[in-house]
Amino acid sequence: MTSPLERMQAELEPIGRAPSGGYRRFAWTAEDAALREWFTGQARARGMDVVRDRAGNLWAWSGDPDAAVAAGRPGLVLGSHLDSVPDGGAFDGPLGVVSAFAALDAVRAAGAEPGRPIGIACFGDEEGARFGVACAGSKLLTGALDADRARGLADADGTTMAEAMAAGGLDPAGAGRDEEALRRVGAFVELHVEQGRLLSGPHATGAPVGVASSIVAHGRWRLDLHGRADHAGTTRLPDRDDPMLALATVITAARTAAERRDAVATVGKVLVHPNGVNAIPSLVTAWLDARGPVPGVVRELVAEVGEAAGTAPVEESWIPPTVFDEDLRDRLAQVLAGPDGVPAPVLPTGAGHDAGILAAAGVPTAMLFVRNPTGVSHSPAEHAEPEDCAAGVAALARVVQALA
Amino acid sequence: MTSPLERMQAELEPIGRAPSGGYRRFAWTAEDAALREWFTGQARARGMDVVRDRAGNLWAWSGDPDAAVAAGRPGLVLGSHLDSVPDGGAFDGPLGVVSAFAALDAVRAAGAEPGRPIGIACFGDEEGARFGVACAGSKLLTGALDADRARGLADADGTTMAEAMAAGGLDPAGAGRDEEALRRVGAFVELHVEQGRLLSGPHATGAPVGVASSIVAHGRWRLDLHGRADHAGTTRLPDRDDPMLALATVITAARTAAERRDAVATVGKVLVHPNGVNAIPSLVTAWLDARGPVPGVVRELVAEVGEAAGTAPVEESWIPPTVFDEDLRDRLAQVLAGPDGVPAPVLPTGAGHDAGILAAAGVPTAMLFVRNPTGVSHSPAEHAEPEDCAAGVAALARVVQALA
Repeated sequence: MTSPLERMQAELEPIGRAPSGGYRRFAWTAEDAALREWFTGQARARGMDVVRDRAGNLWAWSGDPDAAVAAGRPGLVLGSHLDSVPDGGAFDGPLGVVSAFAALDAVRAAGAEPGRPIGIACFGDEEGARFGVACAGSKLLTGALDADRARGLADADGTTMAEAMAAGGLDPAGAGRDEEALRRVGAFVELHVEQGRLLSGPHATGAPVGVASSIVAHGRWRLDLHGRADHAGTTRLPDRDDPMLALATVITAARTAAERRDAVATVGKVLVHPNGVNAIPSLVTAWLDARGPVPGVVRELVAEVGEAAGTAPVEESWIPPTVFDEDLRDRLAQVLAGPDGVPAPVLPTGAGHDAGILAAAGVPTAMLFVRNPTGVSHSPAEHAEPEDCAAGVAALARVVQALA
Repeated sequence: MTSPLERMQAELEPIGRAPSGGYRRFAWTAEDAALREWFTGQARARGMDVVRDRAGNLWAWSGDPDAAVAAGRPGLVLGSHLDSVPDGGAFDGPLGVVSAFAALDAVRAAGAEPGRPIGIACFGDEEGARFGVACAGSKLLTGALDADRARGLADADGTTMAEAMAAGGLDPAGAGRDEEALRRVGAFVELHVEQGRLLSGPHATGAPVGVASSIVAHGRWRLDLHGRADHAGTTRLPDRDDPMLALATVITAARTAAERRDAVATVGKVLVHPNGVNAIPSLVTAWLDARGPVPGVVRELVAEVGEAAGTAPVEESWIPPTVFDEDLRDRLAQVLAGPDGVPAPVLPTGAGHDAGILAAAGVPTAMLFVRNPTGVSHSPAEHAEPEDCAAGVAALARVVQALA
């Protein structure tokens, strides 16, 4: 028999599917609109009101969130995002959204209509795949991303975020921090597939669901490596100014600088101009993603890469380490204790999340992670077993019952 | 006063102009169609018939080329190509075409209608910017490029050359070696901007125009560097299989392998999949362009790069060294001798040309090079002084008078 969770997963399966089997679901595209429409349909089918905040995030509410604010006990919000990295997996984001709907179904089926409004959030542009800024929707919401800067961000085709928002029916002039939407969030709990193997690796406890402790510091930097366009066949080697050589230096320096520190560094995106087989490039742009628990160590690493390449890395985003609300974290670990009474495992993560943005803005926030057998994510091979996904829904339902 | 040459150059200036100031004129695009239309208009204005061969190259004929074949004295063909590399310059290709028209004008203005049909060729897809095979038009014409392989070549969007040809009005099923078109070419002389500084560098003689001796061996290889897609934040360094590291190896190995040999090697084109800032790539594809006078040395270099990268380079094109017709070369050097009687300089080139393809197919072929003050080409900065361009036209006119 197909569970509501599996049914929702099947509905999402074709949207934005790439030939690789992964997903290309980028902010303010037709795929994004289809995902938003699906979200709205699910919410309405459950009698929930859907509101869009000034940053373009969607909020489905069961109960009256404003009455709850007035009563001094704002709602409990679940949810995650539906967008993807290029050729990302089916779980990163969507699992948190479908699990939220399924958990609400489970709570209602148990006859327990929550005593507090329940919200389900669908954050926009979490991956930053199109405009280069991760968690753009939640950062706009909290003001961590300046609205003017956001409006001016351009995608690879030169379309600005303002133009893309307008095409998606959101007034870009109104984009920015949304006090009203934030005030309604008494607590936010985001369920997410684990991106790593702390729940599935050799030191795992066997629990399919864990609670997040913190998100390490992470940022993105752009390195513009300039050279001189020239003919690949007729320009002598000593006469060349070939920025591709600097790219090799950046890639190698990023790896060795990370190896010497408690950090990771990745060059995952490269654009070459003009990118002709027989043309020495005039410009190579490389993006550096660097993360680690200690901010100063990450910044030291980035500076070292810039020095090796002879160019100053341009910071495109920076998020200091996020420690989730400790009371909430401990409470959830207890709520999700196994039959033996052992609390759910508590684990850190190297990935950024909208939950981290809300936590940094002072919202009591927690995350649940669902076991990932290989730890692989941001890949078509990303996976979570159906029984672990079901355990995630059950855990989220217990969280709703405990907190609402 | 504007010369006919400058007038033609001005007409071509806006077609396919990129924001960089360079050109994006790729085979079988709208820009390509506009260039072909311009070519046909120029030919018709001079009373020339334009025929398209089975490979899509255009031939403008003054006089009856088939009668000349029957009489055992086939025509003299000038010309070059009008397409460009991405953000290429205004001279590479077009200078040879406009100079051919201007030379014919000069010969006619001198009252000397040639005693032999004069053709002006506009070869298609010389740069191979779209489908990855350089000199695709001339290679299809001579059979050096298999028609089935050509039809199946795909551009970055997955459009095949067959589809692109059909969109451009050429029946792809008929593409291939064209005996009739080849038979009409008694001799081919291609004028081209020099891509190097043998005419302008410290050892130059001061002559603005030189005659080509040979084209070095050159080829293109594709290296598919496979890895495993993974999250840039959550995957420990030792758990990664990151193909970007192999790219750094390819870039560095190509340079060092060339430095140790009489050869040049360039990585000018790179495609990363999925190319997300926070995603370890699953695949990086790099193209290696390698050239040198000795074929075995070039192949040794390519093998060394493949070995360093742990992958076998896939050959996308290979052209052995081309020595131009020695009688024709010596004759042109004499025809173009300076007032002091010193023959025009004779120089080799590292760049491939349609003239090289025709020479390899047994057509008596020569090339003239026009001085390039910086040697820069395949770049918006590519340049030739107006007086040197005029000297090129005068040289070509003398060649027509001497040979026809």
